[in-house]
Amino acid sequence: MATYEDVINLALRRSFFYPSSDIYANAPAGFYSYGPYGTAIRRALIEQWRRLLLERTNMLEIDSAITMPEDVFKSSGHLASFADPITECVKCESTYRADQLLTDHTEKEYKEAQSDEELTAALVENKLKCGKCGGALGPVKRSSLMVKADVGVAKKTNCYLRPETCQGIFCDFAKLYKTMRVKLPQGIAQVGKAFRNEISPRQTLLRQVEFYQMEAEVFFNPREINDVSEFDAVRDTKLNIQLADQDKPKIMTAGELVEKKIVSGTLVAHYLALTQQLMASYGLALEHCRFRQLDEDERAFYAKEGWDFEVQSSVGWLELIANNYRTDYDLKGHQEGSGTDLTVLDEETNNKYIPHVWEISIGLDRTFYAVLEHAYNKDDKRMWLSLPAVLAPRKVAVFPLLSNKPPLVEKAKEVQKVLLGLNPVLDTRGSIGKRYARSDEIGIPVCVTIDFDTLEDETVTVRERDTTEQKRVPIQELWKVLEDVLVRAKRLSTLQ
Amino acid sequence: MATYEDVINLALRRSFFYPSSDIYANAPAGFYSYGPYGTAIRRALIEQWRRLLLERTNMLEIDSAITMPEDVFKSSGHLASFADPITECVKCESTYRADQLLTDHTEKEYKEAQSDEELTAALVENKLKCGKCGGALGPVKRSSLMVKADVGVAKKTNCYLRPETCQGIFCDFAKLYKTMRVKLPQGIAQVGKAFRNEISPRQTLLRQVEFYQMEAEVFFNPREINDVSEFDAVRDTKLNIQLADQDKPKIMTAGELVEKKIVSGTLVAHYLALTQQLMASYGLALEHCRFRQLDEDERAFYAKEGWDFEVQSSVGWLELIANNYRTDYDLKGHQEGSGTDLTVLDEETNNKYIPHVWEISIGLDRTFYAVLEHAYNKDDKRMWLSLPAVLAPRKVAVFPLLSNKPPLVEKAKEVQKVLLGLNPVLDTRGSIGKRYARSDEIGIPVCVTIDFDTLEDETVTVRERDTTEQKRVPIQELWKVLEDVLVRAKRLSTLQ
Repeated sequence: MATYEDVINLALRRSFFYPSSDIYANAPAGFYSYGPYGTAIRRALIEQWRRLLLERTNMLEIDSAITMPEDVFKSSGHLASFADPITECVKCESTYRADQLLTDHTEKEYKEAQSDEELTAALVENKLKCGKCGGALGPVKRSSLMVKADVGVAKKTNCYLRPETCQGIFCDFAKLYKTMRVKLPQGIAQVGKAFRNEISPRQTLLRQVEFYQMEAEVFFNPREINDVSEFDAVRDTKLNIQLADQDKPKIMTAGELVEKKIVSGTLVAHYLALTQQLMASYGLALEHCRFRQLDEDERAFYAKEGWDFEVQSSVGWLELIANNYRTDYDLKGHQEGSGTDLTVLDEETNNKYIPHVWEISIGLDRTFYAVLEHAYNKDDKRMWLSLPAVLAPRKVAVFPLLSNKPPLVEKAKEVQKVLLGLNPVLDTRGSIGKRYARSDEIGIPVCVTIDFDTLEDETVTVRERDTTEQKRVPIQELWKVLEDVLVRAKRLSTLQ
Repeated sequence: MATYEDVINLALRRSFFYPSSDIYANAPAGFYSYGPYGTAIRRALIEQWRRLLLERTNMLEIDSAITMPEDVFKSSGHLASFADPITECVKCESTYRADQLLTDHTEKEYKEAQSDEELTAALVENKLKCGKCGGALGPVKRSSLMVKADVGVAKKTNCYLRPETCQGIFCDFAKLYKTMRVKLPQGIAQVGKAFRNEISPRQTLLRQVEFYQMEAEVFFNPREINDVSEFDAVRDTKLNIQLADQDKPKIMTAGELVEKKIVSGTLVAHYLALTQQLMASYGLALEHCRFRQLDEDERAFYAKEGWDFEVQSSVGWLELIANNYRTDYDLKGHQEGSGTDLTVLDEETNNKYIPHVWEISIGLDRTFYAVLEHAYNKDDKRMWLSLPAVLAPRKVAVFPLLSNKPPLVEKAKEVQKVLLGLNPVLDTRGSIGKRYARSDEIGIPVCVTIDFDTLEDETVTVRERDTTEQKRVPIQELWKVLEDVLVRAKRLSTLQ
């Protein structure tokens, strides 16, 4: 298995991602850029999400502004309570996250949900000092995670950069319900940037200030939580379920979750199953993943049920998705805060009600990291990225065997044109071995090599990334053969 | 031709876009959200840009952080000079953009580039007063367009939200040059959000605080500005050229621009032609567009050549794209500001040099608006959006003739499955006439209707959006017929 350092070294070497603005010495921590291959893979992750989650359940995808007025976050509760406990050195003013500092330096695990007094007492009790200068640590206080944006000139409204994309969905729900002629249950989704003022951004993509979320909010009538006609299609989907009161996860089907009343209703099992299928399509194997049931202590006070989707990684279990039954908390808050009616009519009972929400909140950058780590392979001879073909940043590479022989280069360009729809890479630099190595490293599923025989008999060598197997193929059949190879490399539907 | 109000009414009625967070009374101006159809169209505009500009010239696409440290904007010049001239009422403190106020209320045209003193004198001379309270207007001063983001807790670096996406490209150039084994000329592109503190955001998508750009920066050796091997492919592309010293635009080919030395070199003509082709694929006809040559007064001091791509609209000529020959200004500034070597080696002359930049900066939201307005059609009977099929938010709709007849609805679902790859809309509500009207309004190119004959003979009615022509087609041939229709409706390549 790959280490965190393996992945980061690869990422930096091939510019999958790298620290933003880093030609400047004082560039702040917590901001990353995706290079060309990273951008392509990130885009493919989003496309799969659209295909396997949004399109299958006819969700609406929107794209709302990142900047939102203060009132939104008063209603959502973020302004009052979205804050981390910090302690500051009284001498050198270094700042630490109190719960993390305590967890790192004691035997116990501390949580941000503990009160400031409790955490302050623990700092004193454990005699913790400033790691930099040995100074005393001040009392624990809260530091808001909200990032303020200084917009407006004349009439100023206090604005913040959203800390999660879903607030735009909640604010737009009533408008979309009306103009899109919605019938519940209805999912509304968006992918985009969100911002959180982390005290100590770290581990590259895993904890950033500016990051990507893919969020889906399914609005439904709680009375109808078991009316999901399409459930049969996913009933047998296997999930690795870690119950709150059990030591070990256990493989169960979506159907079992419903029958054993482990979930609040069919709708929940339906979306857990679709989420599992999406993650499997990313190359994250069932046995390396788990849905971890959150107990009451871990859930937000309004949440009725919660499952963290986690994946094994070199830095421990990594949370990629928060699946939460948020009840009517969000719409209720915005209805009260805005004075706008956010109820809908239950045509059967003729009652007005505030829809409930099932949330699937995916951390896109973390998922990207996990996909890289799980695709990372090495043996004595080489390193290769066994990405599902649908995620590969380039699908095929074309090599002229010798780059100083014009007829070979010309023929390679011809083959490149044959494969135009696959946007093939033409690489002419270095030995064939080096070119294979470079293409394995970024996960290109297939390489096509043109040699002197090609000029005679119109055949080329096709080499597969995962097996390094090579076979001779007529150019005429290349497209067909590549389709087969790409399907075998877990391709799902880019070419369909 | 459609009016601005026509387009906005349609946009709001069908939620193409709408003001963000507007359930809150104090939501700030200048922020818009894209609803489901708007999101789909916006996405298709980006995909076309990738296909017709980026892939054809092997550009690298990146995705850098929105937040950047102050030093970046010291080097780029934004901190010192990216500001609008404003005047404030001394009585009620209302703020105005001085150049606009003067242009609106006098016979002359004033520009933001004029000095504060000049503009102040003009205010006095023209006896302009506050439009709200009649109070006197104070001296003109500059108001920065930069949006500050309050990030960081402990070690704070002053940060801004980028006012243009290209600064990330300039900062990452050296890293990408090395890790991506770049040979110049090489384009690097990105699409994403940018932020500008407009004094008076207005006209919905046309002047926002938070907006989308698609920018491409082509780095090249100025010595090689005429070495573009692929130019032949676009030599005959027609452009509507508005020279700075002429009254009227004139159709010219890209080849003529080179021969008559109207542009600095072949590379410029090449990218102008590709840009024209992209815009044509958006349904913006050649005769409604122009490349307007900027004279020295209009260009930035460092720019050697500039062409604004403008399109006719109900609010006048609308600038969609800034095409600029930025010389080595950007990299030189960042090299000086960061102390990082941004030169590259000219292998032929063995000299180090700072690459020059040709920029294609597309305002995505404005382009979106222009595409809607140009696709807007109405006659006595109906309103329809004649979007190129590649941009249509849905490609096909499926209607059961009567929605209360289960066999028809079942058959419609069957047909929907046949067309799965096209993600067809199933609409069962209201009369067939109303359903056609709804689908015309959002630009669905084809509707397929299932009636009682379908149950007998497995044929359906296919209706085209632009002509309203209907014909009877066997379900078996549906896919083939739809492909033809979609091609005819200017489809470019989604299904290839």
